[in-house]
Amino acid sequence: MNIDIFGYFAAILTTAAFLPQLVKILKTKKADDVSLTTLIMFIVGVLSWIIYGYKISSTPVLTANLITLILNLLILISKIYFKTT
Amino acid sequence: MNIDIFGYFAAILTTAAFLPQLVKILKTKKADDVSLTTLIMFIVGVLSWIIYGYKISSTPVLTANLITLILNLLILISKIYFKTT
Repeated sequence: MNIDIFGYFAAILTTAAFLPQLVKILKTKKADDVSLTTLIMFIVGVLSWIIYGYKISSTPVLTANLITLILNLLILISKIYFKTT
Repeated sequence: MNIDIFGYFAAILTTAAFLPQLVKILKTKKADDVSLTTLIMFIVGVLSWIIYGYKISSTPVLTANLITLILNLLILISKIYFKTT
């Protein structure tokens, strides 16, 4: 069995995983329990992955992290927009 | 400047980012807004990264994802424990 399959499967899951969180916030119009610090640290980390992926010319690292970045930026914006506390 | 610095910085941030989320849940005893689907997809994805990291003998991939797995399992357990809805 090709080992890369685990890598692709892992990349797809840890990227797509943020979609249900975004949908949940948009549906419930609430995100108070989602940590702002976690979102900011994660976004800065993903930005670093993008720089790293670009520098080492890794399309998978670049692509997966660009999608993760967009989803997490949308989660951050939704959280701020629906802020109640 | 060493390109690897971005990789290490990225790995540390996207791993440590989950600690504030765990602390927030333990403090507020609430995690209703945190998506269960996101957590499960992310944990399965991280498990796949661990298998991939082990198979390609990558200590950084293995280490970062083991810590991410532990933090996200604790977030999942806390969410279920403090479930109100």
